[in-house]
Amino acid sequence: MEFVKGIKEKDVLEISDILTGEWFGKEVVLRGFVHTVRDMGEISFVVLRKYEGLVQCVTDSKVKGLEGKALKEGMTLEVKGIAATEDRAPNGFEVRLTDIRVLSEPAKDSTMPLPISKWKLNTSLETKLSLRPIALRNVRERAIFKIQEGLVRGFRDFMFQNHFTEVRTPKIVAGNAEGGANVFKLEYFGKKAFLAQSPQFYKQTMVGIYDRVFEAAPVFRAEKHNTTRHLNEYTSLDFEMGYIDGFEDIMDMEAAMLTYTFEFLKKEYAKELKLLDVKLPAADNIPAVRFDEAKQLVAEKYDRKIKNPYDLEPEEEILIGKYFKEEHDSDFVFVTHYPSKKRPFYAMDDPSDNKFTLSFDLLFKGMEVTTGGQRIHNYEEQVDKMVKRGMDPEEFTNYLMIFKHGMPPHGGLGIGLERLTMKLLDEQNVRETTLFPRDVSRLEP
Amino acid sequence: MEFVKGIKEKDVLEISDILTGEWFGKEVVLRGFVHTVRDMGEISFVVLRKYEGLVQCVTDSKVKGLEGKALKEGMTLEVKGIAATEDRAPNGFEVRLTDIRVLSEPAKDSTMPLPISKWKLNTSLETKLSLRPIALRNVRERAIFKIQEGLVRGFRDFMFQNHFTEVRTPKIVAGNAEGGANVFKLEYFGKKAFLAQSPQFYKQTMVGIYDRVFEAAPVFRAEKHNTTRHLNEYTSLDFEMGYIDGFEDIMDMEAAMLTYTFEFLKKEYAKELKLLDVKLPAADNIPAVRFDEAKQLVAEKYDRKIKNPYDLEPEEEILIGKYFKEEHDSDFVFVTHYPSKKRPFYAMDDPSDNKFTLSFDLLFKGMEVTTGGQRIHNYEEQVDKMVKRGMDPEEFTNYLMIFKHGMPPHGGLGIGLERLTMKLLDEQNVRETTLFPRDVSRLEP
Repeated sequence: MEFVKGIKEKDVLEISDILTGEWFGKEVVLRGFVHTVRDMGEISFVVLRKYEGLVQCVTDSKVKGLEGKALKEGMTLEVKGIAATEDRAPNGFEVRLTDIRVLSEPAKDSTMPLPISKWKLNTSLETKLSLRPIALRNVRERAIFKIQEGLVRGFRDFMFQNHFTEVRTPKIVAGNAEGGANVFKLEYFGKKAFLAQSPQFYKQTMVGIYDRVFEAAPVFRAEKHNTTRHLNEYTSLDFEMGYIDGFEDIMDMEAAMLTYTFEFLKKEYAKELKLLDVKLPAADNIPAVRFDEAKQLVAEKYDRKIKNPYDLEPEEEILIGKYFKEEHDSDFVFVTHYPSKKRPFYAMDDPSDNKFTLSFDLLFKGMEVTTGGQRIHNYEEQVDKMVKRGMDPEEFTNYLMIFKHGMPPHGGLGIGLERLTMKLLDEQNVRETTLFPRDVSRLEP
Repeated sequence: MEFVKGIKEKDVLEISDILTGEWFGKEVVLRGFVHTVRDMGEISFVVLRKYEGLVQCVTDSKVKGLEGKALKEGMTLEVKGIAATEDRAPNGFEVRLTDIRVLSEPAKDSTMPLPISKWKLNTSLETKLSLRPIALRNVRERAIFKIQEGLVRGFRDFMFQNHFTEVRTPKIVAGNAEGGANVFKLEYFGKKAFLAQSPQFYKQTMVGIYDRVFEAAPVFRAEKHNTTRHLNEYTSLDFEMGYIDGFEDIMDMEAAMLTYTFEFLKKEYAKELKLLDVKLPAADNIPAVRFDEAKQLVAEKYDRKIKNPYDLEPEEEILIGKYFKEEHDSDFVFVTHYPSKKRPFYAMDDPSDNKFTLSFDLLFKGMEVTTGGQRIHNYEEQVDKMVKRGMDPEEFTNYLMIFKHGMPPHGGLGIGLERLTMKLLDEQNVRETTLFPRDVSRLEP
């Protein structure tokens, strides 16, 4: 009988082990992908790709283990050799090999379809996406998603520190919070079901249980527009909090969260930030402007006519972003008090003017990355608003149950993770910052 | 122009603030749900429910703010009063109120459909699930999902410490790894799409990029069995690691992860563990037994006939669990070398006997909570195995791409979070440990 006790020590090292300095002049063992091979005659340079970066290895004819086999991009190796400082090599060291063991090989006669070892993949987005499983092996491409990982980690850390509970709400649902046509339908054992457009109903429900909750999970929108900023599946960073004094509490929480998260990135993802030359924005002094005022301000400054006082066009968002960058040097701006007719039935109307709501969007470099606001918490008020909108409260019994038995004043928001990453990295298309994007024409890879 | 700068200090306290001791004898402000009201004539006891627990408040006729309004379960309040130690109260203190402000009220004429303030909800699972949004307000019910939160946090912490990268893979997919009939179909802009049964293809793909990856996310199975252990949507804790020496590395990693996570629970979720009287199991000495041996052992000890040498019946799983509890005092057992015909096409066969695979399940108290193993990494070998199974490799071009251009030896596993929670808490039905379960007959709430 064998017993499994935990991780066994191995003599295989990582880049960070060698960077401690204690391995220079000593024999080291490393494993990694063959990233490039450069034959210089007497010697060859073999660069290995590992999760932490690249390692330059030097081989010559005395190296054992290959038996005439040629090294090839896409192989994986275990190498043994002496580590030595070398300023011209990645990470400032190289390994002078004595032994190579081939762990795996690519298909016979295969050639890499993209020059993934180049610094920048100078290929079209279309090509990159079609070859995503390989394109992501490029060091810069993969750095994008380390930064995205950091954004989620920062968000979660901050949430826990501020006593939010993490919840996992269902993605297959009987009805949807946002309504409208952009919902994916599926057959569910003879019943009609949908994919959740947001965790809205469930996160509100969970406020009745834990006071403050959050979730970072996929949401699904059957949007038919094929734009540079829409996805049909994306990650939503949601939080919802009870006992608020107003929707301003939600904006305060978001500003604090962003500030924390950018600090977290600076500390934990410095390598990737440098690799992609990212300048982190400030989020601790974000201007907040009413929807109607914002429209007025950009109409005046940029000499534009206001076509529809109750809607914000993408160009207006861009101009609002520009205005607050120019006038207040801020990459962010909260636009508050969206018109009621543009907000869902659960949004709380402004008691001083019910054509508007106690809600907001956060624009980041001219693009909406967050929608949030205070929700209705009173049962009768919620039923009234539904009826006024022509909705049947009977269809929402499970949702209305929480108000019937009491809910604290509450509100929350949802952040589009891929858009947040996109604007942070100054990318032009949200697909650049989505691992495997889903859009109207793309379901693979 | 307003500027949003971060969280504003408020004078509202939490239970943990008061438990520091510095507030006794002083005026405190708290917000919470009315959990129970007990009228004693001269005075009343009002228990508030907050995310950290319960607070006993004492009122009398001099308390301001109610103006004759009766307190009612489901209201939310802001209360002001003097904090004082009181051994008989929850958390050892009470608040003698001077002021009450009603923040929100339940619907007129509503009555709580469940006695949520009782210690145990003595209602059927059916009733609890139908009234889930309210049932979860019970202090014991909600503690279940705090422990579940802790399991995921422990898993993620451990993964990060062992240099795994967190990935977010698509849930709408063109094809599925596990195959078979139990897959949900949906219309995707005129194309046929599916909900992901697992992140299998994508996590393997991401091993080519980050060496080690993990994901904690929903998966979807259109299983038609309505059992106590099946769900149609559940959370899968997945990891996948490259450069392994064998599938034993995966089991070692899981044992270490579980050990870390249980320690994490002990430290961070002591309150909930005590509330639910949970005994944490040991995971640092888990027996590992071959599939065929395990069947033999229980057949002998419990005098059973082996009906099918290539399959494990649920009763056999239970008996294997019983055997290793009795013989080795272990709640866990790894069953290794599952028959090839019971494993998907990407499983690596045992080179010494290709009727079996280099794979394993982890049983926890007699129930499968993990499936894992080494995967094929060689392109030609993978194509061969697909063809032998009558699959068309052309349909898997995007998946096969990763092998074509090289993959390290790798493997991984998937853990069913709700089952892990269920067995940890000794619950009899997986729905008890699922926030909003989805099964053949349940799509709401």
